[in-house]
Amino acid sequence: MISVVIVGNGNVATHLTNAFLKADTISVTQINSRKLEKIPQADVTIIAVSDDAIESVSSKIKNSFVVHTSGSVALNSLKNSGNKGVFYPLQTFSKNREVDFYEVPFCLEAENNEDYQLLERLAKSIGNKVFSINSEQRKALHIAAVFVNNFTNHLYKIGNGICKEYHIPFEILHPLIKETVAKIETLSPEKAQTGPAIRNDQKTIKKHLDLLTENQQEIYRILTKSIQNKDEL
Amino acid sequence: MISVVIVGNGNVATHLTNAFLKADTISVTQINSRKLEKIPQADVTIIAVSDDAIESVSSKIKNSFVVHTSGSVALNSLKNSGNKGVFYPLQTFSKNREVDFYEVPFCLEAENNEDYQLLERLAKSIGNKVFSINSEQRKALHIAAVFVNNFTNHLYKIGNGICKEYHIPFEILHPLIKETVAKIETLSPEKAQTGPAIRNDQKTIKKHLDLLTENQQEIYRILTKSIQNKDEL
Repeated sequence: MISVVIVGNGNVATHLTNAFLKADTISVTQINSRKLEKIPQADVTIIAVSDDAIESVSSKIKNSFVVHTSGSVALNSLKNSGNKGVFYPLQTFSKNREVDFYEVPFCLEAENNEDYQLLERLAKSIGNKVFSINSEQRKALHIAAVFVNNFTNHLYKIGNGICKEYHIPFEILHPLIKETVAKIETLSPEKAQTGPAIRNDQKTIKKHLDLLTENQQEIYRILTKSIQNKDEL
Repeated sequence: MISVVIVGNGNVATHLTNAFLKADTISVTQINSRKLEKIPQADVTIIAVSDDAIESVSSKIKNSFVVHTSGSVALNSLKNSGNKGVFYPLQTFSKNREVDFYEVPFCLEAENNEDYQLLERLAKSIGNKVFSINSEQRKALHIAAVFVNNFTNHLYKIGNGICKEYHIPFEILHPLIKETVAKIETLSPEKAQTGPAIRNDQKTIKKHLDLLTENQQEIYRILTKSIQNKDEL
């Protein structure tokens, strides 16, 4: 049995707590980060609070092994007196959506092998995919995630906006969006690239720009330029 | 039985021909666009050639009803003497990937109701999703497709490049990419937006910019600005 305390009440804290509650080999307690004076001892104490609060929350915890769940905060930002680690589930969490932790990659880091193995057992009690990722790699991974998740979602928003303007149901684009993702499971994104930019089809590019707002044009131009600039990246 | 002639030998022509060959109610002949002197008569003649060649190829065809398959060419770019139409399967086609036409939206346009219904029967002989989309809408749809497919794929390429640089397997990001897509089936992209840009988390944004190449920084800045500019789009 592994005892776990989760500090925080945001999406990550809540989803993790719910998953641990279902695991036979885990006992879990969730506490509010403003009530740290009541924190119980545990094998692993997981701080799942906003990035900016990790330092100050961790400095108030005397438990033996404290980890955070952030993609963009280094291990040594933890200021607890005991051992430190990272337990980063790389997924986008929303309040009203179930998370299938079996599909979520857990990116783990610890200061020694014993701690790492404890985190691995913890991750495998609710999931299946475990990766050893150090603080430098995690920082890079978080940036890559911003590109493939946050920025991609924003491109969906632009596509949705264009559809709305012309009274086209956005659902028409869903199969294309899904196929774009399915492709990169077998082809590298480099080989999967299609469209006017990679073909350098100036006539089509010009026609597209003519129909866009200034903000959309700026994004269109820069991404087109970047697609055509094959040497870089 | 509907008789179909397909002009062209690219990905779209080949995938469509293969799908029609399997349909009981269709007889199909595929011909090379350079051998138009041998073109047989047919209920529907489908020109599936590059955008730039549609005008000149269509001008040489005397068949009764001629359609093209392009997302970015207007109906009146067809220069055949008979009736005109558009039969646009909105999907990304690759040589070595099967296409499931049952999932592909067919965007149809014709000059009269009888022709439209013929195209609808044709689309439903191999597919399931049919939309009436006029030339103006199709142009907008094609631009939206560039954002959600071409540009999104390029963001995957950037993510992949960052992972490679730090010796991280790109597969770690696949579940996140899939969830990004799954979300917009139930949430609007606007509501699904997460990340440092929408939170206006300047500390994280600065840390990210510091690690990127100049080209990546330019894309990061513009998409961050666009995410924060909620009024526009």
